[in-house]
Amino acid sequence: MEAKTSTASLTILTDLVLPGETNYLDNLFGGELLARMDRACSIAARRHSRRIVVTASVNHVAFNKSVPVGSVVTVEAKVSRAFNSSMEIYVDVWIEDRQSRHRTKVNEGIYTFVAVDETGKPVKIPELIPETPLEKERFEGALRRKQLSLVLAGKLKPNEATELKALFN
Amino acid sequence: MEAKTSTASLTILTDLVLPGETNYLDNLFGGELLARMDRACSIAARRHSRRIVVTASVNHVAFNKSVPVGSVVTVEAKVSRAFNSSMEIYVDVWIEDRQSRHRTKVNEGIYTFVAVDETGKPVKIPELIPETPLEKERFEGALRRKQLSLVLAGKLKPNEATELKALFN
Amino acid sequence: MEAKTSTASLTILTDLVLPGETNYLDNLFGGELLARMDRACSIAARRHSRRIVVTASVNHVAFNKSVPVGSVVTVEAKVSRAFNSSMEIYVDVWIEDRQSRHRTKVNEGIYTFVAVDETGKPVKIPELIPETPLEKERFEGALRRKQLSLVLAGKLKPNEATELKALFN
Amino acid sequence: MEAKTSTASLTILTDLVLPGETNYLDNLFGGELLARMDRACSIAARRHSRRIVVTASVNHVAFNKSVPVGSVVTVEAKVSRAFNSSMEIYVDVWIEDRQSRHRTKVNEGIYTFVAVDETGKPVKIPELIPETPLEKERFEGALRRKQLSLVLAGKLKPNEATELKALFN
Amino acid sequence: MEAKTSTASLTILTDLVLPGETNYLDNLFGGELLARMDRACSIAARRHSRRIVVTASVNHVAFNKSVPVGSVVTVEAKVSRAFNSSMEIYVDVWIEDRQSRHRTKVNEGIYTFVAVDETGKPVKIPELIPETPLEKERFEGALRRKQLSLVLAGKLKPNEATELKALFN
Amino acid sequence: MEAKTSTASLTILTDLVLPGETNYLDNLFGGELLARMDRACSIAARRHSRRIVVTASVNHVAFNKSVPVGSVVTVEAKVSRAFNSSMEIYVDVWIEDRQSRHRTKVNEGIYTFVAVDETGKPVKIPELIPETPLEKERFEGALRRKQLSLVLAGKLKPNEATELKALFN
Repeated sequence: MEAKTSTASLTILTDLVLPGETNYLDNLFGGELLARMDRACSIAARRHSRRIVVTASVNHVAFNKSVPVGSVVTVEAKVSRAFNSSMEIYVDVWIEDRQSRHRTKVNEGIYTFVAVDETGKPVKIPELIPETPLEKERFEGALRRKQLSLVLAGKLKPNEATELKALFN
Repeated sequence: MEAKTSTASLTILTDLVLPGETNYLDNLFGGELLARMDRACSIAARRHSRRIVVTASVNHVAFNKSVPVGSVVTVEAKVSRAFNSSMEIYVDVWIEDRQSRHRTKVNEGIYTFVAVDETGKPVKIPELIPETPLEKERFEGALRRKQLSLVLAGKLKPNEATELKALFN
Repeated sequence: MEAKTSTASLTILTDLVLPGETNYLDNLFGGELLARMDRACSIAARRHSRRIVVTASVNHVAFNKSVPVGSVVTVEAKVSRAFNSSMEIYVDVWIEDRQSRHRTKVNEGIYTFVAVDETGKPVKIPELIPETPLEKERFEGALRRKQLSLVLAGKLKPNEATELKALFN
Repeated sequence: MEAKTSTASLTILTDLVLPGETNYLDNLFGGELLARMDRACSIAARRHSRRIVVTASVNHVAFNKSVPVGSVVTVEAKVSRAFNSSMEIYVDVWIEDRQSRHRTKVNEGIYTFVAVDETGKPVKIPELIPETPLEKERFEGALRRKQLSLVLAGKLKPNEATELKALFN
Repeated sequence: MEAKTSTASLTILTDLVLPGETNYLDNLFGGELLARMDRACSIAARRHSRRIVVTASVNHVAFNKSVPVGSVVTVEAKVSRAFNSSMEIYVDVWIEDRQSRHRTKVNEGIYTFVAVDETGKPVKIPELIPETPLEKERFEGALRRKQLSLVLAGKLKPNEATELKALFN
Repeated sequence: MEAKTSTASLTILTDLVLPGETNYLDNLFGGELLARMDRACSIAARRHSRRIVVTASVNHVAFNKSVPVGSVVTVEAKVSRAFNSSMEIYVDVWIEDRQSRHRTKVNEGIYTFVAVDETGKPVKIPELIPETPLEKERFEGALRRKQLSLVLAGKLKPNEATELKALFN
């Protein structure tokens, strides 16, 4: 099973914000954006693993800026690290100004997907090779986030989370 | 501004899983469930604050079990702690077996919402008083999660995150 | 087959009114509300019967007040009486004011569902035991409404509809 | 204000049943069909009154036959009687067999709509003149149904409902 | 296999334009209208052929007038010519003014559908007999359009497209 | 007003085919695909013009291959030529095989959009400079298609359509 680059899984979903998807302040509903991010991530995970994939967890999504109705929203997802059968996917969300076409980052999120076979059983997936500095930084962080997730779920004792513990010393 | 209980914000969204909302394995799409959870949380946040609320972040959502087409899904959201203008909301997701009516927990998540005025500016909200042991546990954890979130965003130095640091000693 | 209470089938669907679901006056579309009521009733019917259920008829729905965009709408459905394989379900719809959290009833409806097996054939269901005064009143009315429905469908002669006839004497 | 025929308000909505609109038995969801019926009725009411119209009540909908996925469904709505500012609309639902093109009636319903001005206040509407025998029968029945609705709502005493009472003598 | 008239396939889809289906200028989104036209055409094609049908091409759709939110839109589709297993369908789109009920044509389109069996293989369909002058004109034009489509696809040499060539002499 | 390259308007919309969007043969509905193509084209047109844009016509869309449920579909749109206030946009649709990741072209289409101001009046837009051989070929063809469209609409006499006429000599 050949290792793959992060770029090989890049998935771009560009779409408009329609009036029916907005909240009281005429901004895109958080829930609708979460759904688009999940779809982009699932395609990136599928491109890396060439398998059926299911959402395992959403580790963190920060809504930094609101997305007004009529915006062009671009969701870009890439696998940041592959473990045995699970993958961490980083997703960045941009809007662009119609007149200047300047892009502003509004949101980023980290999702975990698991690759499964037709019966739903986890299967082995290829390794990921990060290339750019940002890809390498996210690759390193992925292990800490995995430990943190295990700690929060009570499946790993805090003092065994070596990568994470190092942060606080 | 009077403090409120956690129960006062309880929001229940019971609905069916229709065939158009499922993935390749005939289970509810992760993105669709995230959208329902966000809607329930936003109502809970609004009930606590009596204000317009917007999603600030999704701190953690774990998909423990898949949700097959035809399931009855119950999403239950409650504010777990209130800060100045932001609230942490805990959301639990259950499915019930049609024949035995036994409930199984499939998913839980932690969302942060911010209360704003008509111009989008954050406003002060009431405090939250936890009552049950589970509410108290989640209330305590909320501070650690807030610190963690600030650390991850680079807005707090790890060694100033006192609550969090205590975990690793 | 053990009789059940009305409360055991209580189903609550709390959700927001999004801009894409409104009419010319910025109120929730009647059709969209009917769809939500049907879904809540079908879950209540399923909880009582633990069977597959299908909509048999909508006996009466009154739209007393309009539901403005941005409202929090709560749909509450409960089985009001069980016959051989059909059930009457009463559904009440409330909106709440964001600031005062005062609840106003906007709508109520009466649906009939039939429990069927995997081939679509009607099956026997448990009896219903009403408990509160309101549940008892609706339980009594259910028989009159069933007779009325049979009269309107030409399957029962008006003068054989004893319960109904009593109303006019 | 000139009286109008029933035919002048005839509204036809022909559409397919897509897989995402079906229940566990692969038939069209009751709620989805109710939403389509409401939309067709609102257009018929608008064509009669040339005003903004809102759903006032659903008096009766009977689901006689199920509607399988892939069906072509035709919803036909016509105003059956006009009162001061409210209208009764009769709606018939048909499916057609793809091979024989034979039409089968699956459902019928009776809706009441009210014509309003831009502020939501009821306005006077034209009278309706029934022409065919079926239109005349439905026109006659409309008065009895209006009385019944008032009786059920507690706004008319049963023994004042002259049209209705005649049925039981 | 008996020839059929164009009228026998007439399909009418009357519906409202809801706020969630509009663009920045509060007019119906082009894409949403294309989707409704495709559904109406597919039903017309199915009524002519009594077979499963799939979209083969959209030959031309002209958006002459915009469709404001709240409009009643009527999509009318009719088969204009039948070839071996493919059909050309002409679709006209109208909106009506609420007060005057005057109809304005906003859009027309030409679609091609192919009739297939359960495995997706093209099957023979009945001939079409045009009756009115407009139907005859569209029937004649259909052959030229088919040749043009073959020329554009590089499957027919321009100088062999006899019907089309005649236009330019 | 500075001329722009075709690449500057490239818009990519990658998404999944969900079960609720499919027809009787479990393939993506033509109408749903047309809606996605229209959305991608409208974003490309907006990126070129930095203006509000509306669909003017769909000149040709060919459905060469069906798109099965579960597919990853990529819609790629680019402006192919700019006229005074209208633009021709070419859109290509691909699906990729989950296991081999091999891309297959399933569909292509040509749309025309018009740039307008806030009142809906057409406005002047930048010229387009084609770069690659394929972009140049489509740029050349755009003029012929514009003439053909005018001929079909009866706004240009066939023998004045010089570019088009040349094709048949």
